[in-house]
Amino acid sequence: MAVIGNKEYFKGINAIKYEGKESDNPLAFKYYNPDQVVAGKTMREHFKFAIAYWHTFCGQGSDPFGPGTQNFEWDQSSDPVQAAKDKADAAFEFISKMGFDYFCFHDFDLIQEGATFAESEKRLATITEYIKQKKAGSGIKLLWGTANCFSNPRYMNGAATNPDFNVLARAGGQIKLALDATIALDGENYVFWGGREGYMSLLNTDMGRELDHMGQFLAMARDYARAQGFEGNFFIEPKPMEPMKHQYDFDAATAIGFLHKYGLEKDFKMNIEVNHATLAQHTFQHEMQVAANAGMLGSLDANRGDYQNGWDTDQFPNNIQETTEAMLVFLKAGGLQGGGINFDAKIRRNSTDMEDVFYAHIGGADTFARALLIADKIVNSSPYEALRTKRYSSFDSGKGKDFEAGKLNLRDLYEIAQDNGELALQSGKQELFENIINQYI
Amino acid sequence: MAVIGNKEYFKGINAIKYEGKESDNPLAFKYYNPDQVVAGKTMREHFKFAIAYWHTFCGQGSDPFGPGTQNFEWDQSSDPVQAAKDKADAAFEFISKMGFDYFCFHDFDLIQEGATFAESEKRLATITEYIKQKKAGSGIKLLWGTANCFSNPRYMNGAATNPDFNVLARAGGQIKLALDATIALDGENYVFWGGREGYMSLLNTDMGRELDHMGQFLAMARDYARAQGFEGNFFIEPKPMEPMKHQYDFDAATAIGFLHKYGLEKDFKMNIEVNHATLAQHTFQHEMQVAANAGMLGSLDANRGDYQNGWDTDQFPNNIQETTEAMLVFLKAGGLQGGGINFDAKIRRNSTDMEDVFYAHIGGADTFARALLIADKIVNSSPYEALRTKRYSSFDSGKGKDFEAGKLNLRDLYEIAQDNGELALQSGKQELFENIINQYI
Amino acid sequence: MAVIGNKEYFKGINAIKYEGKESDNPLAFKYYNPDQVVAGKTMREHFKFAIAYWHTFCGQGSDPFGPGTQNFEWDQSSDPVQAAKDKADAAFEFISKMGFDYFCFHDFDLIQEGATFAESEKRLATITEYIKQKKAGSGIKLLWGTANCFSNPRYMNGAATNPDFNVLARAGGQIKLALDATIALDGENYVFWGGREGYMSLLNTDMGRELDHMGQFLAMARDYARAQGFEGNFFIEPKPMEPMKHQYDFDAATAIGFLHKYGLEKDFKMNIEVNHATLAQHTFQHEMQVAANAGMLGSLDANRGDYQNGWDTDQFPNNIQETTEAMLVFLKAGGLQGGGINFDAKIRRNSTDMEDVFYAHIGGADTFARALLIADKIVNSSPYEALRTKRYSSFDSGKGKDFEAGKLNLRDLYEIAQDNGELALQSGKQELFENIINQYI
Amino acid sequence: MAVIGNKEYFKGINAIKYEGKESDNPLAFKYYNPDQVVAGKTMREHFKFAIAYWHTFCGQGSDPFGPGTQNFEWDQSSDPVQAAKDKADAAFEFISKMGFDYFCFHDFDLIQEGATFAESEKRLATITEYIKQKKAGSGIKLLWGTANCFSNPRYMNGAATNPDFNVLARAGGQIKLALDATIALDGENYVFWGGREGYMSLLNTDMGRELDHMGQFLAMARDYARAQGFEGNFFIEPKPMEPMKHQYDFDAATAIGFLHKYGLEKDFKMNIEVNHATLAQHTFQHEMQVAANAGMLGSLDANRGDYQNGWDTDQFPNNIQETTEAMLVFLKAGGLQGGGINFDAKIRRNSTDMEDVFYAHIGGADTFARALLIADKIVNSSPYEALRTKRYSSFDSGKGKDFEAGKLNLRDLYEIAQDNGELALQSGKQELFENIINQYI
Repeated sequence: MAVIGNKEYFKGINAIKYEGKESDNPLAFKYYNPDQVVAGKTMREHFKFAIAYWHTFCGQGSDPFGPGTQNFEWDQSSDPVQAAKDKADAAFEFISKMGFDYFCFHDFDLIQEGATFAESEKRLATITEYIKQKKAGSGIKLLWGTANCFSNPRYMNGAATNPDFNVLARAGGQIKLALDATIALDGENYVFWGGREGYMSLLNTDMGRELDHMGQFLAMARDYARAQGFEGNFFIEPKPMEPMKHQYDFDAATAIGFLHKYGLEKDFKMNIEVNHATLAQHTFQHEMQVAANAGMLGSLDANRGDYQNGWDTDQFPNNIQETTEAMLVFLKAGGLQGGGINFDAKIRRNSTDMEDVFYAHIGGADTFARALLIADKIVNSSPYEALRTKRYSSFDSGKGKDFEAGKLNLRDLYEIAQDNGELALQSGKQELFENIINQYI
Repeated sequence: MAVIGNKEYFKGINAIKYEGKESDNPLAFKYYNPDQVVAGKTMREHFKFAIAYWHTFCGQGSDPFGPGTQNFEWDQSSDPVQAAKDKADAAFEFISKMGFDYFCFHDFDLIQEGATFAESEKRLATITEYIKQKKAGSGIKLLWGTANCFSNPRYMNGAATNPDFNVLARAGGQIKLALDATIALDGENYVFWGGREGYMSLLNTDMGRELDHMGQFLAMARDYARAQGFEGNFFIEPKPMEPMKHQYDFDAATAIGFLHKYGLEKDFKMNIEVNHATLAQHTFQHEMQVAANAGMLGSLDANRGDYQNGWDTDQFPNNIQETTEAMLVFLKAGGLQGGGINFDAKIRRNSTDMEDVFYAHIGGADTFARALLIADKIVNSSPYEALRTKRYSSFDSGKGKDFEAGKLNLRDLYEIAQDNGELALQSGKQELFENIINQYI
Repeated sequence: MAVIGNKEYFKGINAIKYEGKESDNPLAFKYYNPDQVVAGKTMREHFKFAIAYWHTFCGQGSDPFGPGTQNFEWDQSSDPVQAAKDKADAAFEFISKMGFDYFCFHDFDLIQEGATFAESEKRLATITEYIKQKKAGSGIKLLWGTANCFSNPRYMNGAATNPDFNVLARAGGQIKLALDATIALDGENYVFWGGREGYMSLLNTDMGRELDHMGQFLAMARDYARAQGFEGNFFIEPKPMEPMKHQYDFDAATAIGFLHKYGLEKDFKMNIEVNHATLAQHTFQHEMQVAANAGMLGSLDANRGDYQNGWDTDQFPNNIQETTEAMLVFLKAGGLQGGGINFDAKIRRNSTDMEDVFYAHIGGADTFARALLIADKIVNSSPYEALRTKRYSSFDSGKGKDFEAGKLNLRDLYEIAQDNGELALQSGKQELFENIINQYI
Repeated sequence: MAVIGNKEYFKGINAIKYEGKESDNPLAFKYYNPDQVVAGKTMREHFKFAIAYWHTFCGQGSDPFGPGTQNFEWDQSSDPVQAAKDKADAAFEFISKMGFDYFCFHDFDLIQEGATFAESEKRLATITEYIKQKKAGSGIKLLWGTANCFSNPRYMNGAATNPDFNVLARAGGQIKLALDATIALDGENYVFWGGREGYMSLLNTDMGRELDHMGQFLAMARDYARAQGFEGNFFIEPKPMEPMKHQYDFDAATAIGFLHKYGLEKDFKMNIEVNHATLAQHTFQHEMQVAANAGMLGSLDANRGDYQNGWDTDQFPNNIQETTEAMLVFLKAGGLQGGGINFDAKIRRNSTDMEDVFYAHIGGADTFARALLIADKIVNSSPYEALRTKRYSSFDSGKGKDFEAGKLNLRDLYEIAQDNGELALQSGKQELFENIINQYI
């Protein structure tokens, strides 16, 4: 049911429905059928699709070579509070028309930052209250909140890792307010993306000291939120570079190591983003698997990069094969730890029709739904799992099992090697595995 | 003093001497003056330059598009033991003519692998004994040993991470022998480069299980070596990819996280290679700093990649700026933890003159020596250190110091933010830092 | 009909048949149905699938970190002529079992190079005669021949671009023989891949002089072949790097510019390889389109790279989306100019079962067949073409048409700009285009 | 002599002087000595250093993750004409304090674009007249002008390659005005950087038609300018990607091929930018050499990228080795064809002190000056040239010379190959070449 505010912003577009893969209607889901059960849960439950407030309602298509191209009707009021309420109306209308259940935000996506800290605090409180009411009337929920500690020039040298303590303190104050807002809106999780936590030049940087600061800072934020009764997860969102030359949360392995070093591993998990994975020279599914190995596959930022472009293009997901492989990891990991799938994606700067943002989200949701259906079939109906199991079967009994149980030492291995003679090669059968995936697409 | 065996292999080339930067002699050092004291130690002590047995005495210039171009005179005997002794003679002649103190090897660099495990063991024992004598007569030392558990087809799916336990056991046996040889030769360290520890396709791979195996395997190797009295360091050498699509020891941060997870952090440190760093989208100096932050800056593999080529080109170091920045990290970290600087570099396939390998090593050593001299001046005579210290001075007293001491909580930061008002921007002064570096080159 | 020689090499594997997409038989085509008509031609005619002699019958899985893993039964004879005949038997057996019509070769894929030029010439003549007979009995044809002027150490500094004239002359002699063999075998085309035509270091290279040599050399080769009655196409196969640091035929645009500069544009076209395209930071479809724009879309080398690895991995095609977009270019260009689709791809080093090479080629052929079917539907049944046409419709009449006809000058544009006032933005509708592609997959 | 307008913007900074390499003054040149003669010309004449109006006077440090950090005093007036005049005052003050002779601009760098085409035309005329007076009083000259046909949303789908003819016409009108301004200011050259000439998605793009439009458009612009008496060069500035997914002027080879195809090769040359070269997987010196081979080495945009970041970072030049190799190409090509060296570089977003922009330009100029001095010594005092000449000497006489003269055919080469027997390998001596470069740094 579309949630319309004082004004309908997306006129002429009704709630997007599932019509099945034979439909030619570009404004219908072809695979995403929210209440269809796959692998024991509805698609809605598996995915918890969320809209990214920043891209969909704030980003207007600017890039380093030109200003925005998309003039939003909800962005006309010169009163920042009214503009924020209009934007919230538009957001809830859009989310409800898409049939999604969640949104995600940065603090100053909701409302423009004030000229002073006090003014910002006041504005945030006002818009939080307004959104609380919108939530109540719509059933739409907050997947996660976060604070934008990277856009304001004050953070140009970092926030928690700023060489100036007063900037760090300012970031701390801002995050307190963002946590308060998240808690007030029953946010299920809270995210840290280290926007400018990193360095532009190692020459002027004390990396070790900055990382110590970041560890301490995150612990303080966690302690505060827990003291306020927040029971959700904290997520780190790795990214290797951009805007900084190097970002400290380079990839999942780096971030997980960091969390352990600073005693944060109980409360924090990973929010894995596709385009951040590929910028770090990993596949999306690799990063998911690294997080899953650590029990930290918390949430996903769905988008895609361009393999010929070296920056975060944040395009909408459309790669069926890649997403299928990701859904294999997803299913085998038992889904996400508390999070969902947030479309951290933006329409292209030259996509200026009102429908474009609908096409984009429909394409993204369908890509995930289709990939889940395929992955479920691969797991349950194909030789895929049996082939994998067989590959490691030498560790399921005998000496291999003893090895896993810690019963052997190096001299034991040496003796086994002596006894074994030369070994037969065992094909990895990669091409067969790949054919199986394609067979089910 | 050149150490000549039964035959002089590099005829017409005498020991390479330091002649200073005004020399036009291409077969002289222009900056590397072994006994010159810089920052409290001789260059010889700082660097512990080592020759890589594999590139310099085994590699013949083959690449995926053609066989070797360099026919070594020491590689003529059809008797593998004699060929190995000839190679050792050539190696000790070369190392001594270069005036270096160290070498590094993989087991089957020293001698060709046998048809059976027993035969290989026997061959290794023979050549180890021979090299022991060469060492004794020359003062040349073993910086580190390692085992080649990646070339033989049996390791095509990995060694410690092979899905077949028997291959893992074979690798264990082989590493026992390599450890024995290293210990016999008074090796100061032992290296693990995870040649095929990784995956070609995530589809057929149980990454979590493979990593558990690797953790256990390394612990077993350590325990064995310690039981044999080995007191040196173990090094992990990170590399992100190649030959595998993904290598588990992707970069320093990943490897350090792994070591902590499996309780190996006391015994293992990092061996950082330039070209591996850049393949992982890091600078060399970044990887060094990450290792230094963890107290794990163990050793360096000196070479360079090509920024337009996406594979391990292993060219000799020649980048003065990059090496200067690396030497800044080196000096501030107090040098290396047990290791040295190993020229893990090969002359180009089309460098086929006997002198070329001398030019290459001279250029590499001079690059490091020059960079050390420059870095020392920057640290001691330029505003560099003062500028860095000032940048972080807000944490050296007052509230900033309290923060580092753990005396503040998030609400404290919030109150500081409230009190502070808007903050002045503090320039990072990157261009000034860069000009200072260039001024001293 | 399988063509078996003295011995059956792929025992237990019969001719691969089309069984349709519901088949679970991993040794059957699911989409490639050779005689099915699509867009006015059979699949067989569209694709002219070819086997690459070098990867499939010569490559044994070696890589820079280890020797081959695949021991071929046809590679056992110590007599090079017998070994070559055995390999030809295996090749014709495999090609016929796959049901393909074509093969491609380098001269010394067919038979091992001799110790002297004269010996090589003799060997080539012998094996050419043998293959002629195999062809006659099987209907299998030669899509293209080429000469390997990059593996032998003599070519380490290039062939046509070697700084030593005598090496250039040797390459000329070798190419004469390869052209003779191609003509003798009724080869439909002849390919130049500039294996080491490029440089390792610009410092020692006179690029302009080398390119002049290459232009002249190619003209000489063309003139010779035409004089021998060869009427087929010559193809340049662009690649940006590897083995050289820079390859002169960097990409299609570079190679096309080169051909025009040296007056070769009438006789030469492009052989576009997927992995070479992506190494050059282009998509496959981009390179195809560049060639098609110049009327030079000659032939395709089908494979794929790994987006996280920076070298030529030459994996088998399996990307349905990428291939679909390529087939859109293919169909709109009216197919290929004389060439076909050659599987320039190799099974992974750890794919060591005999079936693996069949799975690989089946997966590759099915990917192309499926993509062609999808592309045909997109062109004929979807709004795709109409959307594209409408986008450019302002040039189909009025002033836009005048512009294309060369009837306007800059002052005319200035006046139109003055008159027009501000213009409405026209969405590029990229997300809709992408959704249409996925709808038809 | 500093040219101060109504107000001094860079107070406390005097004209930057050459003080030599022993100077510790960060606000002095250490190598750039404008009137020092090197290789027959003064440094001033060699380089024609230019300031980029856009980065230095317009860019305020914004990036995709945050707004500008640099608040310019000259950017305070709400009257666009007054603001433009203030900016021009600041520009001429800065250029004169740097001691440079040139500047470069885009039309709407000079003054903010108006709400209508007519208003823009009027504004441009006003500021052109103002700058004319500034020039007259200062001796500062215009190296080149250009039009910004990429920032305004109307160009989101391209300018000359826009699918909408009316946008193309608008671009034509704008370029007429930019040409008029360039001519009025005695501009020595005019540049086309294809800002959004390319595509975001090949799916919605008719590349061939768009390129035809671009060819015709450039011819129209040239014809207009020539008719107005413009005798300078036109330059194409290649860039491979960003902002578009693919830019048509990918690299020098692509752009040169394009110019020839459309008959523009007589009037157009290349403007090579360092960071654009490296984004295209080339070195700067490679792109310079490609342009030089075609007689099109027109001008240089001096900056540098970050080898770990995949976007145009436009940092100031500081790489001595890279610039030395570039200066070798520069000297051997006989310098630039009409252009100069424009610092198309910006200080980092976190470089917020007024001095930073001086440090940056000083570092850049010193890098080029030092590199020129080194390159001159390498050419004149080292074995570098002799080694290169010797490498190609087989083409300077005998059969090699006949080959270059076109006197041989393929059969001749075949006969030479038959006669020659096996050839000795000739080392490329890359490591020696590299050591020579470093010796002279």
